[in-house]
Amino acid sequence: MSALQTELKVALYTMCLVRDGDRVLLMNRPAEKGFPGWIAPGGKVDFPESLTEGAAREVLEETGLTVRNLIYKGLDEFVDPKRNFRYMVFNYAAQEFEGELLENPPEGELKWIPINEAAAYLMQDWFKRRLSFFFEEGTFEVYAVYDQETDTTWKETVKRT
Amino acid sequence: MSALQTELKVALYTMCLVRDGDRVLLMNRPAEKGFPGWIAPGGKVDFPESLTEGAAREVLEETGLTVRNLIYKGLDEFVDPKRNFRYMVFNYAAQEFEGELLENPPEGELKWIPINEAAAYLMQDWFKRRLSFFFEEGTFEVYAVYDQETDTTWKETVKRT
Repeated sequence: MSALQTELKVALYTMCLVRDGDRVLLMNRPAEKGFPGWIAPGGKVDFPESLTEGAAREVLEETGLTVRNLIYKGLDEFVDPKRNFRYMVFNYAAQEFEGELLENPPEGELKWIPINEAAAYLMQDWFKRRLSFFFEEGTFEVYAVYDQETDTTWKETVKRT
Repeated sequence: MSALQTELKVALYTMCLVRDGDRVLLMNRPAEKGFPGWIAPGGKVDFPESLTEGAAREVLEETGLTVRNLIYKGLDEFVDPKRNFRYMVFNYAAQEFEGELLENPPEGELKWIPINEAAAYLMQDWFKRRLSFFFEEGTFEVYAVYDQETDTTWKETVKRT
């Protein structure tokens, strides 16, 4: 392989769970958007913005809310050694926000869901697991070694950090 | 510019401050290593290791200590828009460790320094500032927009997250 092919590629994403008392804001992604089901807003970090700028921008674009004083909750990442690729999602919680929910949100229906009912909603397995971490103290590091070619997860560790 | 030239390059580093009661472990980097002065151990994340694996490996290599249950303290990063480059340092604290300090540490003399005396040691300014964040609750995000060509910092934000 050439030097260019072996250069590491890092993809940076954010996710932000907005909380209002005992309810959280989720959106129902339709199947045609990929990753269907209820999920927190988020997306790719647009270089050169900071991680928290990226997280707040995605919340604004997808929900209409302006969030402040984001709280870092943890990292969910996978590495794909064959592709020399690292995919990192930085997760935040927000309890301070203003604005009104969009009437026609671009990424799916928005709903304030009581925390103790959220697990009953249709969700991607990885999001359902990650969701519980948002309500724990401290931060987390989820790390997986994944092979896209065979769609296989070789190793996975979950640490409290 | 070609597509290849404009592709974002992300450099991932860790730093880990080992603490034993009211003392922290620093090393005195000699000038020939770059960034001379007292500093916590750390270095580049070796793909495909996780961030905490990388941080623990650097501590072991540079000090001889095996650290466990790392606590995430925050991100110090800069972006260089002209170079399409992002440099990220993930910072950890460790209070659980075992082993003996190396007699001939490869990156500089090791010393357990009382926390309230550390600021009097010769340090890079950016490390001295970051050091205080390790002793605060929660996590931090230091973000700068830097231009290497002119060695100019255009913007800098420090957030508690």
